[in-house]
Amino acid sequence: MARIICTGLGPGDPELMAVRADRLIRAASQIAYFRKAGRAGQARQIVEGMLAATVVEHAMEYPVTTELPFDSPDYNVALAGFYDAWAARLVALPGEVVVLCEGDPFFYGSFMHLYTRLQGRVEIEVVPGITGMTGCWHATGQPITWGDDVLAVLMGTQSEDDLVAHMGACDALVVMKTGRNLPRVRRALARAGRLADAWLVENGTMPGQRVRRLAEVDGADCPYFAIVLVHGKGRRPETAHPEVAS
Amino acid sequence: MARIICTGLGPGDPELMAVRADRLIRAASQIAYFRKAGRAGQARQIVEGMLAATVVEHAMEYPVTTELPFDSPDYNVALAGFYDAWAARLVALPGEVVVLCEGDPFFYGSFMHLYTRLQGRVEIEVVPGITGMTGCWHATGQPITWGDDVLAVLMGTQSEDDLVAHMGACDALVVMKTGRNLPRVRRALARAGRLADAWLVENGTMPGQRVRRLAEVDGADCPYFAIVLVHGKGRRPETAHPEVAS
Repeated sequence: MARIICTGLGPGDPELMAVRADRLIRAASQIAYFRKAGRAGQARQIVEGMLAATVVEHAMEYPVTTELPFDSPDYNVALAGFYDAWAARLVALPGEVVVLCEGDPFFYGSFMHLYTRLQGRVEIEVVPGITGMTGCWHATGQPITWGDDVLAVLMGTQSEDDLVAHMGACDALVVMKTGRNLPRVRRALARAGRLADAWLVENGTMPGQRVRRLAEVDGADCPYFAIVLVHGKGRRPETAHPEVAS
Repeated sequence: MARIICTGLGPGDPELMAVRADRLIRAASQIAYFRKAGRAGQARQIVEGMLAATVVEHAMEYPVTTELPFDSPDYNVALAGFYDAWAARLVALPGEVVVLCEGDPFFYGSFMHLYTRLQGRVEIEVVPGITGMTGCWHATGQPITWGDDVLAVLMGTQSEDDLVAHMGACDALVVMKTGRNLPRVRRALARAGRLADAWLVENGTMPGQRVRRLAEVDGADCPYFAIVLVHGKGRRPETAHPEVAS
């Protein structure tokens, strides 16, 4: 029976990979990673220069990308078949396969679609990674949260009213899946009174890293790999409690 | 002028430290870390066995812990003086100091109180780490978020009504600073209809790791180093958008 190890790769800088992930990837005889057809793939690019000369690579290429609407039944059927087929192929491989996953595999990771399908069929280990959002708040050079700040991780796909409600109720904000949703995210931040404190971070910890105040970004500029951040200001606790860190 | 490098240590397992943090800690001639007086300190324990034989250690011992209420003016004055004094000592040290910080330094890290005081006085580098909550969701063996899940990181110090509002509005939940606040957190989860899906994780990725369903934990059992988790179920996007991961 095969053994599958999914390693988180962290936010992009290979130096920010966990020690365990680094060792497993360098020693891997087989690796697998998702990518768009015709692209190098972000996960594969992160490990460039780390792989054994004899490594066998399995590029798991998404069957559809922009051809079908993301929420269409056809899209879901195509993707489900894709994950089914790759789960079967990975299980049938002899020996150990290291699956590469950007960020942390259990935080919005595509690996989870294989993980659910592999349960009980194969031995699985998952190695945590530094999340992409962590790389982005480090790019701003400021703590995202301190004291008793409440943090929300929001999605650019949420409705504007829903975004406004969360943005008003939480201290620190991370907004993912921005891209073409960025104008709505921006309107919601403005309505919640948070636009002046919002940052747009592209490629956190990676070569193309770029950090800008969102209010100063042209409205038509919607970079795809970008996260919006609003830092917490250090909320004071609501109730007295004597605990302090050890 | 001194150079200060703060390295995140990750959730506790030294194998989950970033490659860069591992290298810096092994090569350090001086380290500094926070701890309670009379304790070994969690940060120091994580790096046990990694340090050079000649390393100089600076244990930054909190001046007060349980003697004063956490939200009292006296407590804040004492802590502010403590951070002021350590910032001055670190700046005056010759050469490079590696400050150890559990988890990620920019995510609820105590280092931030030194960081603000050191700005402009010394060269500072901050190395990200895997957050403690990431270690905890890995301990449960399930993804915390997928699809378009919204995640909230809440504090056990929030009022019960405030907790209920956030718990009802978000898909995935992380509740920190539980301890003696755990009964209130539990009542809030029950009111929000989330208690059956809640997990209590102690010492994620560390030797004393323990994962239990919160509903099955005795009401009087409030472990101090514990996080409450509720996993997201994979929210579908609210609006059509064609983007897929690369």
